Amino acid sequence: MSRIPANTIERLSLYRRLLERTADLGRTDIYSYELASMACVTPAKVRRDLMNLGCIGNPSRGYSISELIGNVSVLLDSDTPREIALVGVGNLGRAILSYFRGRRKNLQISVAFDSDRRKTGRIIVGCRCLSMKELKKTITERNIAAAILAVPAKAAQETADKLVEAGIKGILNYAPVPLRLPDHVFAENRDMTTALEKVAYFAGLQE
Amino acid sequence: MSRIPANTIERLSLYRRLLERTADLGRTDIYSYELASMACVTPAKVRRDLMNLGCIGNPSRGYSISELIGNVSVLLDSDTPREIALVGVGNLGRAILSYFRGRRKNLQISVAFDSDRRKTGRIIVGCRCLSMKELKKTITERNIAAAILAVPAKAAQETADKLVEAGIKGILNYAPVPLRLPDHVFAENRDMTTALEKVAYFAGLQE
Repeated sequence: MSRIPANTIERLSLYRRLLERTADLGRTDIYSYELASMACVTPAKVRRDLMNLGCIGNPSRGYSISELIGNVSVLLDSDTPREIALVGVGNLGRAILSYFRGRRKNLQISVAFDSDRRKTGRIIVGCRCLSMKELKKTITERNIAAAILAVPAKAAQETADKLVEAGIKGILNYAPVPLRLPDHVFAENRDMTTALEKVAYFAGLQE
Repeated sequence: MSRIPANTIERLSLYRRLLERTADLGRTDIYSYELASMACVTPAKVRRDLMNLGCIGNPSRGYSISELIGNVSVLLDSDTPREIALVGVGNLGRAILSYFRGRRKNLQISVAFDSDRRKTGRIIVGCRCLSMKELKKTITERNIAAAILAVPAKAAQETADKLVEAGIKGILNYAPVPLRLPDHVFAENRDMTTALEKVAYFAGLQE
């Protein structure tokens, strides 16, 4: 299978969520322009994206919603449940645990790590929290490929290095610093301070 | 002042945070290649970005860290404290409140809104939580320009419409759906589900 660009993967993930909501309203088919309107992109882009899934719309009915959802799921979901590790169980880490709990059957945060002894050994928001010393062994043995980083800036790079050493191949980084990672590791940076400063700057320009 | 692109603003915000950490270590000057290495971009890009600030490096010492921080602050910060509104005080909203509390003197979440009566009228993580009915009046009267949206998907568009009606010019959107907004409103989407699905997908490709 050819590698699909990251931006397309992002849109397919979004389409699936929008399609699930549309199916909940009792709809069975959808036109590309409707999905485009919900996703705030052009209909041409939706049609190109859906071609990656091998889906072709019917001129009179549009696309089958269940077929689209099924095909996105084949692409994005693993056959077996895919475990995600969380590192850092502070306020943000807890919010992440609550947010993702039960959201996707095959994509669950199944283990968390923290350096604070008051947290380790406990179940926090439904997830077992282990010590940082157990990180490498646990991730390697359970063959966990993706992790969410929610530690303070000063611990971010060191923690990322440990994750890579343990075999992690993808990191969702909420720490407010970029990470230096080997080429084979995919990183998505979601620094909240930068996002807020950017929004405030552009909001201010319009005053 | 010419409009600086969003990606440049994002990097300047990041540089400031990296420079503050470097200053904390007792450093007074920095070379563009050092800042580039910390920010994971090229030195040429750093130099171009810093030209937007009117900063020119000294060949033998590099850039003055305090001058850089000062000039980023002139650009990004308002002279007077800038209020940010938060809508949605669930798990994610609380994490956002904790995260930003005291982080930036002139960029503070000063009011929150929620539809849950058990939350309204209370101080939550140091921030007063008001009812949705008070949203328009409060935002208009206090001339708040930017808001963070942390409501469930089904309430997102309706809430965004209310924010725009109240005069909001920038929205940091954590709800898992894109928003339809007028052109004069800047939006930054930070959907966590899409981010995690993307990371899991690319992590899985490497297995």
